[in-house]
Amino acid sequence: MSYRLGIDLGGTTAKIALVDEKGRVVKSATVPSHGFPVPQVLARQCAETCHRLLDGKKIKRVGVGVAGDIDFDRGVVRVSPNLGWKNVPLKKMLQASFRCDVIVDNDANAAAWGLYKTQVPKSVKNMIAVTLGTGVGGGLVLNGELYRGGTGSAGEVGHMTMDENGRLCNCGNRGCLETYAGAIHLVRRVKEDLAQGQRSSLQKIYKTAPETITPLLLSQEARKGDSYARKVWADVGHVLGLALGNLVYVFNPEFIILTGGIAQAKGLILTPLLKTLRKRTFKTPIRHVNVHVADEAPNMGVIGASLL
Amino acid sequence: MSYRLGIDLGGTTAKIALVDEKGRVVKSATVPSHGFPVPQVLARQCAETCHRLLDGKKIKRVGVGVAGDIDFDRGVVRVSPNLGWKNVPLKKMLQASFRCDVIVDNDANAAAWGLYKTQVPKSVKNMIAVTLGTGVGGGLVLNGELYRGGTGSAGEVGHMTMDENGRLCNCGNRGCLETYAGAIHLVRRVKEDLAQGQRSSLQKIYKTAPETITPLLLSQEARKGDSYARKVWADVGHVLGLALGNLVYVFNPEFIILTGGIAQAKGLILTPLLKTLRKRTFKTPIRHVNVHVADEAPNMGVIGASLL
Repeated sequence: MSYRLGIDLGGTTAKIALVDEKGRVVKSATVPSHGFPVPQVLARQCAETCHRLLDGKKIKRVGVGVAGDIDFDRGVVRVSPNLGWKNVPLKKMLQASFRCDVIVDNDANAAAWGLYKTQVPKSVKNMIAVTLGTGVGGGLVLNGELYRGGTGSAGEVGHMTMDENGRLCNCGNRGCLETYAGAIHLVRRVKEDLAQGQRSSLQKIYKTAPETITPLLLSQEARKGDSYARKVWADVGHVLGLALGNLVYVFNPEFIILTGGIAQAKGLILTPLLKTLRKRTFKTPIRHVNVHVADEAPNMGVIGASLL
Repeated sequence: MSYRLGIDLGGTTAKIALVDEKGRVVKSATVPSHGFPVPQVLARQCAETCHRLLDGKKIKRVGVGVAGDIDFDRGVVRVSPNLGWKNVPLKKMLQASFRCDVIVDNDANAAAWGLYKTQVPKSVKNMIAVTLGTGVGGGLVLNGELYRGGTGSAGEVGHMTMDENGRLCNCGNRGCLETYAGAIHLVRRVKEDLAQGQRSSLQKIYKTAPETITPLLLSQEARKGDSYARKVWADVGHVLGLALGNLVYVFNPEFIILTGGIAQAKGLILTPLLKTLRKRTFKTPIRHVNVHVADEAPNMGVIGASLL
């Protein structure tokens, strides 16, 4: 049995896992990473935890996925707002603690690669992964390889402009895909509508406990038949259909995989998404693309990192 | 000296050229292809012309660029509206006439490849070519190779949705990039504005000879200072900036090259385009992308085909 080691480094914790050759987590641990940790200290803590998990086992490679702008070739974290890091040579720092190669990549790339290797048919060579979480991210696999672009910044589907006069995004622009399909904006929109008296079964909940309004609740109410909640999901699906339609035109993938909390609305999003996608795209590429909601896999970031 | 042979097969003529190793046309000829030619007949005529140009010279490969939906792997023209062809096994037909390999690809891909090989710095690995002609097309070079996608349909940037309620496109959808940046739609928009009494130096020309209103005239009037004409180009540049911004987010290319008649408006488009692009995209990818108007090269289709 051969093993791989993955580190998924976010702004709250670093997940570390020993992964077997079938992509299953054998052992895992976490290291806290909140409060803008000193890079050298966090790197040492991660390395120590890795060696504890390894327990003498030999590995060929350590893969690290980091939330931020990564220089893949040099293994440098250019900027990570969540970690408060700038120009951190993470690869070099970790390399000193291991007798094997260390690969540092963006966390969305790592997750996309994990999905590609564990949830997508082997015949697929070109895939878009879209993460619909708090924000919206993505990763591309082209010709069977993770595509990183000129500076390792590829795959940022969440900031494609859908309407330049739309809602203000955290990035400073307006109308990014994330402002339609990211959880924060979705919940904000729903609360605004409810505050303006929108008729919905959510109205009662909004008046008593507005903080309990989440995407999960919104999908529950939609499934119970609330037409407003259904409309909200239909809007998300429609805008995703337009965005993915553009990507189908440009890079003609065989597979699109949606993941993250928002994607768990499944059919509520997928039905309108496919309707828009079929309406907008050409026949040949649309006939050959499969749009799929990923199986829930909370460890995909660390599994993907281990498979880098 | 080694030679290559290219065929650029459009709905009016097939351009055929013998190209040297530096990508220069040595000899060329055309074969008429209008009026929906019988595939076998046109293939034979092209092959005969090729042999006449070759005059006994040996070549390793014949490259063919065809306007239409091409199955690159099998060398089949799935659909070419301009030629009136459906499921034509062009590679097989031509292969019989040559003792070398025949490559059949989409004409936009061929042109993009030609630009990449002749007008782009060698260090560039990821490039988007956008052809702003009668319509709007494109081609992608990723990791130093022409990227064709799952069914050879990649690179159709002209049909990205910019506004789903926009102008009706020839493809049947509304608000495609082509309806903002393609010559037919651009001229139509200008004439509509002038018919509605838009103040402009073009008004006099519109009243006496409306058929002389072309993108070239529009750029001449803009350069003379007509504020309406300047505004039209600014709009084209702005929408292109939004579309290319989305592609920078997703593909993170080092180079974007604009070609075709509309691109010859140069600064009139490029200045507003870059302004929008810089406003919309993240710092790292935008710092590393060069946006460039291609040198005029009327034979790029056939040169690119020869280099496939």
